[in-house]
Amino acid sequence: MGNAVKRLAILGSTGSIGKQTLDVVRNFRDSFKVMGLACNNSIDSFTAQLEEFSPAFAHIDARAQLPRNVKMLSMEDIASHPDVDIVVISTMGRAGLAPALAAIKSGKTVAIANKEILVMAGELIMNMAAESGARILPIDSEHSAIWQCLQGEGAGISRLLLTASGGPFFGLSQRKLSKVTVKDALNHPTWKMGKKVTIDSATLFNKGLEAIEARWLFNIPYEKIEIIIHRQSIVHSMIEFADGSIKAQLSTPDMHLPIQYALFYPQRVHNGKIAHLDFSGKQTLFFEPVNYADFPCLKLALAAAKKGGSYPAVLCAADEIAVEMFLNNSIGFLDIAHLIEKTLDMHQPIANPEIDDILVSDAWARETALKVARKEI
Amino acid sequence: MGNAVKRLAILGSTGSIGKQTLDVVRNFRDSFKVMGLACNNSIDSFTAQLEEFSPAFAHIDARAQLPRNVKMLSMEDIASHPDVDIVVISTMGRAGLAPALAAIKSGKTVAIANKEILVMAGELIMNMAAESGARILPIDSEHSAIWQCLQGEGAGISRLLLTASGGPFFGLSQRKLSKVTVKDALNHPTWKMGKKVTIDSATLFNKGLEAIEARWLFNIPYEKIEIIIHRQSIVHSMIEFADGSIKAQLSTPDMHLPIQYALFYPQRVHNGKIAHLDFSGKQTLFFEPVNYADFPCLKLALAAAKKGGSYPAVLCAADEIAVEMFLNNSIGFLDIAHLIEKTLDMHQPIANPEIDDILVSDAWARETALKVARKEI
Repeated sequence: MGNAVKRLAILGSTGSIGKQTLDVVRNFRDSFKVMGLACNNSIDSFTAQLEEFSPAFAHIDARAQLPRNVKMLSMEDIASHPDVDIVVISTMGRAGLAPALAAIKSGKTVAIANKEILVMAGELIMNMAAESGARILPIDSEHSAIWQCLQGEGAGISRLLLTASGGPFFGLSQRKLSKVTVKDALNHPTWKMGKKVTIDSATLFNKGLEAIEARWLFNIPYEKIEIIIHRQSIVHSMIEFADGSIKAQLSTPDMHLPIQYALFYPQRVHNGKIAHLDFSGKQTLFFEPVNYADFPCLKLALAAAKKGGSYPAVLCAADEIAVEMFLNNSIGFLDIAHLIEKTLDMHQPIANPEIDDILVSDAWARETALKVARKEI
Repeated sequence: MGNAVKRLAILGSTGSIGKQTLDVVRNFRDSFKVMGLACNNSIDSFTAQLEEFSPAFAHIDARAQLPRNVKMLSMEDIASHPDVDIVVISTMGRAGLAPALAAIKSGKTVAIANKEILVMAGELIMNMAAESGARILPIDSEHSAIWQCLQGEGAGISRLLLTASGGPFFGLSQRKLSKVTVKDALNHPTWKMGKKVTIDSATLFNKGLEAIEARWLFNIPYEKIEIIIHRQSIVHSMIEFADGSIKAQLSTPDMHLPIQYALFYPQRVHNGKIAHLDFSGKQTLFFEPVNYADFPCLKLALAAAKKGGSYPAVLCAADEIAVEMFLNNSIGFLDIAHLIEKTLDMHQPIANPEIDDILVSDAWARETALKVARKEI
């Protein structure tokens, strides 16, 4: 590549995006050095990663011993360490928020795969980044698409066409939806992802989160965001400009591509392991509108987005609890929306929340969602 | 807009692109001043344009008087006039070559809608522009799409997916093709264009020309250019980058958009008269491979392109004669390819041609194509 080696920290390295980030590093050993890794509790997988990549420091939440040559640090200390250039945040749910703030405060390049961070604290984070000079790069396929389409363009976005696969239950009746199992929900038609994201994709809740992320990452107001169903996950989103011209980004559904784009940005590098789209035969791309009545979680997310303040934090927390309970078979699929709605309804909002307000709202929402599930309220 | 007024010369102002360029000017009177106009022989239409836009100078090939306040200049003098910032070249066939060279030599911004110029003399023109600092901007919808997709991108193009509508005869048998009339051929399914371009679009000859233009405008080698049929003319072309990511540009088929993009570049400006794409209902985009056996003109064009030298000039000239004769009902539709093929076969090529070599080849090819048509050779 001829460029300096980029020094990485990967927080959430044993999750789906974390593993794929390490795949990219494996493919381009000369371009990257893994300085730090962090995981929650997948001890075996983490141990293998530590052995393979020999980071200087690491963090694991579970009780576990690190090899002698690896220093145990907190996620915040890893994220802000002077020997790190790029922090990849691929943690789940709320866990990435504090390290993200630490990385941004110290002016790092932060590649974010964790949707909740920008949803909970988007305004705070973007302001903080503007102050510290930190760059925030998206790893989500949709936001990577938007980012790619915006390269070299100035102002004048007239519309974001945010594409949604529709998940495994697209078109199912409410009656059938009430009976879907965890196994059904985890069977995503196009993407291989972590469990939480897969369920959020089945409820289309994830598109609501993505709209909020897009609003903060690219400063696109909600009224310019249009969600359209594109079952094939080939077009990863489109941007329409003031003159009516639309740019779309297309690729095979493979997260290695947006990960690699963020890590190499602004360079584009060939990776033999990423399949290219085939136009040698017939190819058809289908788009259709969202039927919002079928996706109450999406409606709730967009409503909370527009209300702003502490609502998006409550939205995320309630969903995290609801999805966890669905995965544990404690509630049914349709109860996810119910839990989120009830929790949002009961929330006393805080306008212009600081981080502490966000954390308090988050904790309140978790407790409340649990109580709703247990029918205590 | 807050920017300085751009001073335009439009060569070929009574043709389809010329008229649409003036539509754009009409829409943005504060942004543009028409300094010069030129046309071949549409006297009435030209007189009305002179009255409406009061250019300082003009040119008409036909015997006609200009109003007293409009100075008659040659197209070359208009194209290189110090009071002109942007020269739009929307002439037909070979006619635009000399003024294009004059504009480029004097370092103008040159917006080219005339395919033949770059096909005949692409290498010369790009070298000349590099020397003079002239900027060459495409007005063709496909090249505008490529140009838009390349904004903000560095090196690393792995593929150009050049889309083709397929024209009005897509899928017809050779037997049926042998009987098509001029009226059939002028009935293009998606674009309203001039007659010559419409016939070239029916034979797919225009895609061959476009491949050659793309090769010179964007330095994309032929082996990276893939032509795909997209009957709807919504995706105007796509670029694949080294990492496998594809960017596509989409819009309604309306030439005002690429014209406006070139004139305002790099600004994007809302134009209420350009319809935006509608994704509020179902939308399907179809792509299919080209069956080269059905489109001999395309095959001939690509073969001449790869041979290079004076072949592309001969290709253009033979096609210009062949299409003219088809439009005059002197030859049948399938004879177009026959005339081009025979002429190319008889050509004694000149490697690295200078302008004079190109003009000599052009004249030879016109004469030869005529003789072939008259069965004199």
